[in-house]
Amino acid sequence: MSELLAPAWAATGAGALVDDHALLTAMLDVEVALAEAQAELGVLPEEAAKAIRAVTVADLDPDAIAAGVRETANPVVAFVAGLTAAVDPAAAEYVHRGSTSQDILDTALMLLCASTFERVEGDLLATAASLADQVRTHRDTPMAGRTLTQHAVPVTFGLKAATWLHGVLDAVERVRRARAALPVSIGGAAGTLAAYEQYGPGALALPDRVAEKLGLAPQALPWHGIRTPIADVASALLGTTGALGKIAADVLVLSRTEIGEVTEERAPGRGASSAMPQKHNPVFATLVATAARQLPPLAVVLFQSMTAEDERSSGGWHAEWQPLRDALRGTAGAAANAVRMAETLQVHPEVMAANLRLTRGAIVSERVNAFLAPKLGKAAAKRLLAEAAAEAERTGADLAGVLGADVPPGLLDPASYTGLAGPLADRALARFEREEF
Amino acid sequence: MSELLAPAWAATGAGALVDDHALLTAMLDVEVALAEAQAELGVLPEEAAKAIRAVTVADLDPDAIAAGVRETANPVVAFVAGLTAAVDPAAAEYVHRGSTSQDILDTALMLLCASTFERVEGDLLATAASLADQVRTHRDTPMAGRTLTQHAVPVTFGLKAATWLHGVLDAVERVRRARAALPVSIGGAAGTLAAYEQYGPGALALPDRVAEKLGLAPQALPWHGIRTPIADVASALLGTTGALGKIAADVLVLSRTEIGEVTEERAPGRGASSAMPQKHNPVFATLVATAARQLPPLAVVLFQSMTAEDERSSGGWHAEWQPLRDALRGTAGAAANAVRMAETLQVHPEVMAANLRLTRGAIVSERVNAFLAPKLGKAAAKRLLAEAAAEAERTGADLAGVLGADVPPGLLDPASYTGLAGPLADRALARFEREEF
Amino acid sequence: MSELLAPAWAATGAGALVDDHALLTAMLDVEVALAEAQAELGVLPEEAAKAIRAVTVADLDPDAIAAGVRETANPVVAFVAGLTAAVDPAAAEYVHRGSTSQDILDTALMLLCASTFERVEGDLLATAASLADQVRTHRDTPMAGRTLTQHAVPVTFGLKAATWLHGVLDAVERVRRARAALPVSIGGAAGTLAAYEQYGPGALALPDRVAEKLGLAPQALPWHGIRTPIADVASALLGTTGALGKIAADVLVLSRTEIGEVTEERAPGRGASSAMPQKHNPVFATLVATAARQLPPLAVVLFQSMTAEDERSSGGWHAEWQPLRDALRGTAGAAANAVRMAETLQVHPEVMAANLRLTRGAIVSERVNAFLAPKLGKAAAKRLLAEAAAEAERTGADLAGVLGADVPPGLLDPASYTGLAGPLADRALARFEREEF
Amino acid sequence: MSELLAPAWAATGAGALVDDHALLTAMLDVEVALAEAQAELGVLPEEAAKAIRAVTVADLDPDAIAAGVRETANPVVAFVAGLTAAVDPAAAEYVHRGSTSQDILDTALMLLCASTFERVEGDLLATAASLADQVRTHRDTPMAGRTLTQHAVPVTFGLKAATWLHGVLDAVERVRRARAALPVSIGGAAGTLAAYEQYGPGALALPDRVAEKLGLAPQALPWHGIRTPIADVASALLGTTGALGKIAADVLVLSRTEIGEVTEERAPGRGASSAMPQKHNPVFATLVATAARQLPPLAVVLFQSMTAEDERSSGGWHAEWQPLRDALRGTAGAAANAVRMAETLQVHPEVMAANLRLTRGAIVSERVNAFLAPKLGKAAAKRLLAEAAAEAERTGADLAGVLGADVPPGLLDPASYTGLAGPLADRALARFEREEF
Repeated sequence: MSELLAPAWAATGAGALVDDHALLTAMLDVEVALAEAQAELGVLPEEAAKAIRAVTVADLDPDAIAAGVRETANPVVAFVAGLTAAVDPAAAEYVHRGSTSQDILDTALMLLCASTFERVEGDLLATAASLADQVRTHRDTPMAGRTLTQHAVPVTFGLKAATWLHGVLDAVERVRRARAALPVSIGGAAGTLAAYEQYGPGALALPDRVAEKLGLAPQALPWHGIRTPIADVASALLGTTGALGKIAADVLVLSRTEIGEVTEERAPGRGASSAMPQKHNPVFATLVATAARQLPPLAVVLFQSMTAEDERSSGGWHAEWQPLRDALRGTAGAAANAVRMAETLQVHPEVMAANLRLTRGAIVSERVNAFLAPKLGKAAAKRLLAEAAAEAERTGADLAGVLGADVPPGLLDPASYTGLAGPLADRALARFEREEF
Repeated sequence: MSELLAPAWAATGAGALVDDHALLTAMLDVEVALAEAQAELGVLPEEAAKAIRAVTVADLDPDAIAAGVRETANPVVAFVAGLTAAVDPAAAEYVHRGSTSQDILDTALMLLCASTFERVEGDLLATAASLADQVRTHRDTPMAGRTLTQHAVPVTFGLKAATWLHGVLDAVERVRRARAALPVSIGGAAGTLAAYEQYGPGALALPDRVAEKLGLAPQALPWHGIRTPIADVASALLGTTGALGKIAADVLVLSRTEIGEVTEERAPGRGASSAMPQKHNPVFATLVATAARQLPPLAVVLFQSMTAEDERSSGGWHAEWQPLRDALRGTAGAAANAVRMAETLQVHPEVMAANLRLTRGAIVSERVNAFLAPKLGKAAAKRLLAEAAAEAERTGADLAGVLGADVPPGLLDPASYTGLAGPLADRALARFEREEF
Repeated sequence: MSELLAPAWAATGAGALVDDHALLTAMLDVEVALAEAQAELGVLPEEAAKAIRAVTVADLDPDAIAAGVRETANPVVAFVAGLTAAVDPAAAEYVHRGSTSQDILDTALMLLCASTFERVEGDLLATAASLADQVRTHRDTPMAGRTLTQHAVPVTFGLKAATWLHGVLDAVERVRRARAALPVSIGGAAGTLAAYEQYGPGALALPDRVAEKLGLAPQALPWHGIRTPIADVASALLGTTGALGKIAADVLVLSRTEIGEVTEERAPGRGASSAMPQKHNPVFATLVATAARQLPPLAVVLFQSMTAEDERSSGGWHAEWQPLRDALRGTAGAAANAVRMAETLQVHPEVMAANLRLTRGAIVSERVNAFLAPKLGKAAAKRLLAEAAAEAERTGADLAGVLGADVPPGLLDPASYTGLAGPLADRALARFEREEF
Repeated sequence: MSELLAPAWAATGAGALVDDHALLTAMLDVEVALAEAQAELGVLPEEAAKAIRAVTVADLDPDAIAAGVRETANPVVAFVAGLTAAVDPAAAEYVHRGSTSQDILDTALMLLCASTFERVEGDLLATAASLADQVRTHRDTPMAGRTLTQHAVPVTFGLKAATWLHGVLDAVERVRRARAALPVSIGGAAGTLAAYEQYGPGALALPDRVAEKLGLAPQALPWHGIRTPIADVASALLGTTGALGKIAADVLVLSRTEIGEVTEERAPGRGASSAMPQKHNPVFATLVATAARQLPPLAVVLFQSMTAEDERSSGGWHAEWQPLRDALRGTAGAAANAVRMAETLQVHPEVMAANLRLTRGAIVSERVNAFLAPKLGKAAAKRLLAEAAAEAERTGADLAGVLGADVPPGLLDPASYTGLAGPLADRALARFEREEF
């Protein structure tokens, strides 16, 4: 029960991906894979491996393991004690043979990363599919482009959704690459594989065998002290929440009461307020924005932990675990909520059209400038236009009226000044379709 | 069950200070205090307040509240629904009267801060008491001072422990100040107290009454949008883990196998390795160092949340909760582990003395320089000494031998070159004793 | 020339507060104060102190000092060499007597903090004065209160400006407290004052004398290894950019094209775009928002540096300097730009009034709820209102029309539902006036 | 003059890679490439492009551009004005045609990233070459492996250097990938290419042509609002300083006075202290460690800037520039200093051998355990060994002596228990050699 302060991932199922039960399951999986690989190499009897496989999380005492964290600074020592006690006595000798805490925990964490990445990839693809639908539907729907909070020039909602889609596909690529690269971690007490080798030859082949059993990548070297894998995980997570956070930031702006160009679908109770009956808050966007704010600082700890002394550091390694867990569930929560944000997004072209007219033509002054500059000279054109815009604003007139006959009226139609928004949106769609995401 | 990856606070009791049960308890406390204050102001009947007080956490459904977090982006809407359902029906009308989610949640979080600060203060004082004992015992125990990893000049362990103590007392002061300043948060939907006032006059006095009932400070203004209180909490937490992290960093260096000047007390199983029978790791220092690495990035989110738009932001507010929880339990865990680190610290003066002789006199070359400079001139003295140090290093001779009769031998005794370490250590002790910490 | 990528402080004068010239000036000031204090204590001749005072930054070679940073990991070694070469030869013996790099650099950095805090305090007060004017002028100007991007209930611009003012006054208090606490740093090579004492008795009094000459606070203990002062500086800077960033975030929302409730004053060229002649971007708010985003991560380094090993660490100390410089100039820049943001802010009550009517009454549904709940029961009232709000939205009707005669029409006037905004705004004003900021 | 507080990159040449001169040069390069590409497309006369190419940084007024940063929140508006004034008047019309500030600045920043990555790659390879030499020389040099600060089991210096090398090669790969992916940024005011197209057809092809001229990758879509490229740069920089910081952290430990297994080469003045003549500080390791501490927080701003609203945000974009510059020069400085750290590293096998004997055999108790466990049972073996280790420690005896004849003495030779350190080290070497880094 720890989700009430975690809007980034509450009730999304992300918590269960990395909670203590998931961790213990993964740690058991690693011990099993290790024992089975050792059985293949003749280091221990096949029956022992079978006996270890028979143990389940229910056979372990989580409180004792938690107490062990404080006694030994990691959960593995007490976990191994529990596993040894739970296993068939004949196999007890063979539990954790030649191994070390970091081998078990690092590999187990890679398994949690794997399952999280897989969930995230699926949710990113679902989000992308919804966004692709929006691109198709609104390829040519004009709306105001905004820079530094002000209307700039027209864009299309299709292009906006295409940039969102493009960002999500970037994230998918990075998540896939990171998933594929997740390595096993088998090194023994100080990365020499010495104790594994002490129990029998073949230890050099052991890591690859364990990796294969667990669906992880091989390791080039034991990486107790070179934490590139953790940094790569962090980068992929940040790429995801960054891309989704961008969408959320835009949805929050566009769904403002005064703007109203998009809204999250209304459902009973969703976005309700404890005080105000009329309220329909953009909930999914808020939840995604929350995760996007929280992830980068968590990742700082992970990147800083690359810099840690010795074959295993005091603190550098330990500091990774909780931020990694938080970053994983935060990202998984963001992806789950992004699916809902994307699929429930209501788009209002008529409001976009109305907002596009708000500045009465000023939003296309760049175009008029491009028309006048070759005629009047760049500086004179810009001056003329700034004055016309000011007069239009002061008098409430349309820019077209102020400029008069010198400028063809069609030039001042915002809907016709969306440049190459269409072909650019097509590119993002093509990427989504072509690469069979 | 979520402590296995949290060495910063596992098994210290810190988790229970801020878990969902503690949060719901605090939220109930806030609703009760609000109702009782409103009863005093005549806004609702005293019986209603009594009925609200009768509800306990056991009457609520945490899963439903967690689900509500995803529907409404905060836990209060579903909590209020649960509370309304749980209360005597006659009082249901009066639950959460005129209130808003942020009032309840912010105030409840302040209560969690309060209980955490109180726990932390106690543990800091216990740590300080152990350190003060070390200062008294080792006021004049000489040891090598180290800068940039190299022996610099002698210090005393008394002074080193005194600087630790000084840092801890700095933390105590900041924690006390922060605890005393924790304000109630009562503003209503957008900080105008309007709905409270709508139910009856006197709402301007309401926040102070609620604050008094809850042991919190009054608020000057509703602070939904001005987050100084959160930033102040963050600063106090960082001051604590920074001060404790400094001690841990030193303990980790001094307990290195090659240095061995301090060790954490050995207890069966403590600091054990899953692989190496001889290992006694400095566990408490490692746990404290872990917290010290994790806290500053968590605080980034809290400080950044000061910058949030509107009367209540979408994401800025929500992003505070989980890092605040993590920072609170990380700090409480660090303080609890620091108590153990300080009280189990074994100091080895004989090893300190041996290490002090490692450089065969070079550690006091600053003093010889101060002796020779007035005689030979500063530059010549420094040159002569650098040459003598190099020769001593090359030949394995003592610096005294190389320098010969020009330098009185007493000058080269490291134990007599501890400067004003004693009086300075006394100052920290006096601060501890005088201010009745 | 390094301001082009630094919008947080470019062209504000903040750069000169902490650039290399300012640093060298401060380092000279420290050496002078040290020599003069030592002259008073009889450790060196008064003429020597005078000679040291005669040296100026122009006498030093910054390139040589920069090269020294790479050779010795700090700028002091080469600085002292340059100072020794520049001083009257008779005084050369007395330069930097008994001192150490960290004493000079830490104290010089405290001087840079002092001048920056003083500048920041002045700019915060100027900002506060502008805000106080806004509070007075618009005490009762109603506008929409917004939560999670949606209209919530009415507030006043007076209350909004009052919360901004309140935050700024919080910052002033923290800056003043931090300025007053900035300590001298005099400890000698490893914090024992040994070399100072070696040159003559009285070293225990030396730090206080140096502090007094420099306008700094005394130190309790040498703080080479206990970095509370750096953390306190960081907290005060974060409090400032957080409070100013909040204002900027609101200004950016309120000046959006569709909202238009405030604008930054238009001046020729200000907020101009390289492409769009009509553009008037909210420049000062953008610059302040930039600083507010950048400060918390910089502060992470400062807080993490509290945790550093030994009497002086390898990296922990060194990592402080550049983020401290960046945080100081970022904060000074933000304060300078906030002055302009506050004094140029144009407020548009008529737009506020128009926006307040956008939801055709729904913005006061909380009030109607408070009216109906005692009559119909809370649940029934909320249901009725949600239905009425939905019907009003569907049909474009006013909520008043949908609700009909059951609700007194005055209840639906947003301008009359601003609760206690007025008295609350008065509180912030009173704080500003009373405390003679 | 701004290097004195920047030990991470002072005097390495890294500053010049990204200073204002480098930026203005890059901005000119972008305007030239744009004009030339437009000339090819027939949008402007070739003479105009030639005239633009004739302008140099010396023709611009940096102070005016800095002032413009404060007026317009970016350096491009004033830069374009300066460029327009500096160019042959006949070409003035054609300067910055159809363009927008972000196109110029983003692309120019990519050019700075490119030159920095190229420099960094070269320095990483030089570092790798030195490390590879160490691996070859010390492939089989035994030393103590250390975990949680305590002697754990033996390793070899060859394996340690191999893990460093492996980390550096990871960084090279990431830097190369990031360099190759650096995209041009050409989108026009709001990413539709509209103004470019307004001046003549073919704008869809424009970005690719500009990219080719500048040696940048094509863009898929304009990325004003999807900041994957910035995040990818940040990840590559963090990978570099993380890998180098790991080496520095180890060097700092191993060069401690009490450990002394490695030292940085001594050169006159290098590592000198302003106070202590005997001091030789590990300077390069300290400088690298400084950069490694500073980088991750800087990157937070870059990752957080992915989440920014609108076609161009107010603050999100602006907040990127200075941290990006700082991260680039910090990484370049770290790489330059790592070259020196690696090439000056002195390794002392005899000290390693002596330290390996410090625990009188306890360092191989894991191996004895692996020998005894199959005989006595795992638990009994571990108990026996823990008791023997305790007795050996209490009495100062060798573990071999305490264990007696039950254990073959060769088993207790640390130098023979280095497991598969040799073959693992070969792997890293092979990677370096095979992949032709």
